[in-house]
Amino acid sequence: MGVLYNQVADQLQELIQDGVYRQGERLPGVRALARQFSVSISTILQAHQTLEARGFLQARERSGYFVRLPAADVPEPRMSEQRSRPLPVSAREMTLDLCADEQKRMVPLATAIPHADYLPLRQIQQSTLWAARRGLETLDYAFPGKESFRRQIAQRMATLGVPVAPDDVLATNGAQEAIILALRAVTQPGDIVAVESPSFPGILQALEVVGLRVIEIPTHPSEGLSLEGLQLALEQWPLKACVVVPNHSNPMGAQMSDLRKQQLVSMLAAADVPLIEDDIYGDLFHTGERPRPAKAFDHADNVIYCSSFSKTISPGLRLGWMIPGRHMASARQHKYFVNLATSSIPQLAVAHFLEQGGYDRYLRGARQHYREATARLRSAVARAFPKGTAVSRPQGGFVLWVQLPDGVSGTELFRRARSENINVAPGLMFSTTRKFENCLRLNGGNPWTERIDRAVIRLGALAHELQQAD
Amino acid sequence: MGVLYNQVADQLQELIQDGVYRQGERLPGVRALARQFSVSISTILQAHQTLEARGFLQARERSGYFVRLPAADVPEPRMSEQRSRPLPVSAREMTLDLCADEQKRMVPLATAIPHADYLPLRQIQQSTLWAARRGLETLDYAFPGKESFRRQIAQRMATLGVPVAPDDVLATNGAQEAIILALRAVTQPGDIVAVESPSFPGILQALEVVGLRVIEIPTHPSEGLSLEGLQLALEQWPLKACVVVPNHSNPMGAQMSDLRKQQLVSMLAAADVPLIEDDIYGDLFHTGERPRPAKAFDHADNVIYCSSFSKTISPGLRLGWMIPGRHMASARQHKYFVNLATSSIPQLAVAHFLEQGGYDRYLRGARQHYREATARLRSAVARAFPKGTAVSRPQGGFVLWVQLPDGVSGTELFRRARSENINVAPGLMFSTTRKFENCLRLNGGNPWTERIDRAVIRLGALAHELQQAD
Repeated sequence: MGVLYNQVADQLQELIQDGVYRQGERLPGVRALARQFSVSISTILQAHQTLEARGFLQARERSGYFVRLPAADVPEPRMSEQRSRPLPVSAREMTLDLCADEQKRMVPLATAIPHADYLPLRQIQQSTLWAARRGLETLDYAFPGKESFRRQIAQRMATLGVPVAPDDVLATNGAQEAIILALRAVTQPGDIVAVESPSFPGILQALEVVGLRVIEIPTHPSEGLSLEGLQLALEQWPLKACVVVPNHSNPMGAQMSDLRKQQLVSMLAAADVPLIEDDIYGDLFHTGERPRPAKAFDHADNVIYCSSFSKTISPGLRLGWMIPGRHMASARQHKYFVNLATSSIPQLAVAHFLEQGGYDRYLRGARQHYREATARLRSAVARAFPKGTAVSRPQGGFVLWVQLPDGVSGTELFRRARSENINVAPGLMFSTTRKFENCLRLNGGNPWTERIDRAVIRLGALAHELQQAD
Repeated sequence: MGVLYNQVADQLQELIQDGVYRQGERLPGVRALARQFSVSISTILQAHQTLEARGFLQARERSGYFVRLPAADVPEPRMSEQRSRPLPVSAREMTLDLCADEQKRMVPLATAIPHADYLPLRQIQQSTLWAARRGLETLDYAFPGKESFRRQIAQRMATLGVPVAPDDVLATNGAQEAIILALRAVTQPGDIVAVESPSFPGILQALEVVGLRVIEIPTHPSEGLSLEGLQLALEQWPLKACVVVPNHSNPMGAQMSDLRKQQLVSMLAAADVPLIEDDIYGDLFHTGERPRPAKAFDHADNVIYCSSFSKTISPGLRLGWMIPGRHMASARQHKYFVNLATSSIPQLAVAHFLEQGGYDRYLRGARQHYREATARLRSAVARAFPKGTAVSRPQGGFVLWVQLPDGVSGTELFRRARSENINVAPGLMFSTTRKFENCLRLNGGNPWTERIDRAVIRLGALAHELQQAD
């Protein structure tokens, strides 16, 4: 829901996007708007600043605010086409390269790692100090998870419409490990698994670790996985699992509607194909209410829910969890086999942080940061990149998916940018095929700085150069 | 070397084991011994108590100390025979059962988990508090490991004769994960890997996770892996790796001599088969100097070194490391794929603890505890179990390997003991075959209590019952 000025900004933004206020037009004066929305003048001024940050307004001295309308200039990316056969997943080392040490001094537009400014440093530090004083509890062996952590997760899951007991929760080293444990529980090496396309590279890596083949299902930039595409794949191939990020899938930030989630869940239940749900961005929705996970619509115990705190509290904790349902025995065994248990101190610290209510307070601020930061980056890309560029309009999370004009290579842009110390993620990381060769993923989660601004302008100039060379 | 009374106790123990003092014989008086060893009377009294704790002496009121000689009554277990073909590894869920929640109220003789009394609780708590105050360092993403942790590990490795740079160290979630990463780096599913036999169940689980086949190499209870057996396997099978615990292998506690380690390393280098070394018990040697790892004799960069602090500082940290050598790129990539990084706080805490010198101080006490506790358990087993029982004489660590008389089933003893709330590890967990069906592993790392004493007597009585029923 957010604070009042955000609600006003949302409504103004809708009016701009609907064409009520057009490109270049001056907005009504602050007094008029204050009357129109029945709010104070200072609320209107805050809403103006918010829309300016999102890139929808431009302030001109002594003249007021003018509509800038970046959105109309850049459409959302096209949906990819259906592929015809399963492919093995291999050689995904490029993802590793993006987060190597030597990249740390570059402009950080590549990785989907939250910026330190947006992490709840002070609060998690307090909770870690509390946890460190627990004595023996910190040293003993937390398999299948600390009771206090599992209880807090169970409480949160209940608020998402997924009532589970603490014993239904398995603590993991991040969501990545949870997805691998889920895949191991329901597949054998060589099996075929369906994923979104473009796909989060970590999911493709998980498939590679388990030795699986992949079918990439076209995914709409705002509506998410194509159910028609999935139905086609179910008819054609003996799928053994389907991995989906229904809420703000990385890289496009799409959000499946509740209706589409229900359809997804029942379609897979009918086909007896387990759904592995990754909800890692669910808490970082930009507007409205916390979207429900697909697991909330799971009446057949056919959804394995996976998530983590790596995008919210801290990636350094390496703390995630899963709700494996009827696959608990298998998931527990695999967890025990791969590394026995998840570190105790992070579990105790996060349990304390959640119990104190700090997490929800923190999320309210983080969501607004990410929403404004991604909108601002979107506007900057729209201004800087050549005509024909399309940019996703994420409904949560903090990454943008950029589709370059036909013939402009994302890989070449990545290479040239890197030689200028700008780090971006090339589109070919997001598929086992080369179909996203003309795409880029940008991290929109950074605070806006002169350095980032200059980097986006430079990226746009490089894209122009590549287009002219084409 | 340890304190003076321990040196005296060691020498007395050798005299007893060599038959200089025989079963039932009274030791010379304290004054005579004090002269003989050129030490004080109080040192002799402490040495007496130590040997009593180890089960070699019995105090009789007003008469002095008498030799009890448990050692002569129980030989060391026999070496297993060579197997003839590689087997797949599967269905190892029994190991999981041993550490399930419901077993926590049982007498804890099953798992090789250090007892809380022997962990450096206060020190690691101080270091964790220190780490928690590091701020951002605790939240950011520690791939491939915190610099401070890797530097401390590099320093320790240098003292073991393995000079490496911090960049040569990869932080892992315990040694289990390190072994899996090493296996993934050098094998493909279906490959054949040689292991000790009996084998630490975690190593068999690691082989199962990676989808490998196993050749079990006979292992001597005090000399370790049979080099003749390994040579035979190398000639017969296309081995792709060999996993060995040269220092105090679980379950037998054997220690390979430096000469045998050298032979092992050069034999495998000549055959171009990588050696994966697990040195997790190396710091818990009972007498003499810290044994060197096989990696110290590795001139061909053919040994991947794995270890962790789970047996020393705390199993709850889940903190290990590996020195992958020329396989670093592959190990790093696999680490990133399975769970991205190891939790930051445990790394910072352990780095601080090591830097402060607390670890070595702590180890001196822990080694003595484990040495005395395992000797005491060994004596108790020798007294309680039927004739024909053999017990390992571990040179480090804190587990005992018990070979029951022919025809007595360890699995049945495990079942009966469990129904009486005594938890032991049945021999069949330590092989993919049933060849250790008449064995048990006992955790000797607990402080000696009336409850444990009674449990061992009861285990012996159950073994007698099974022998009579045979």
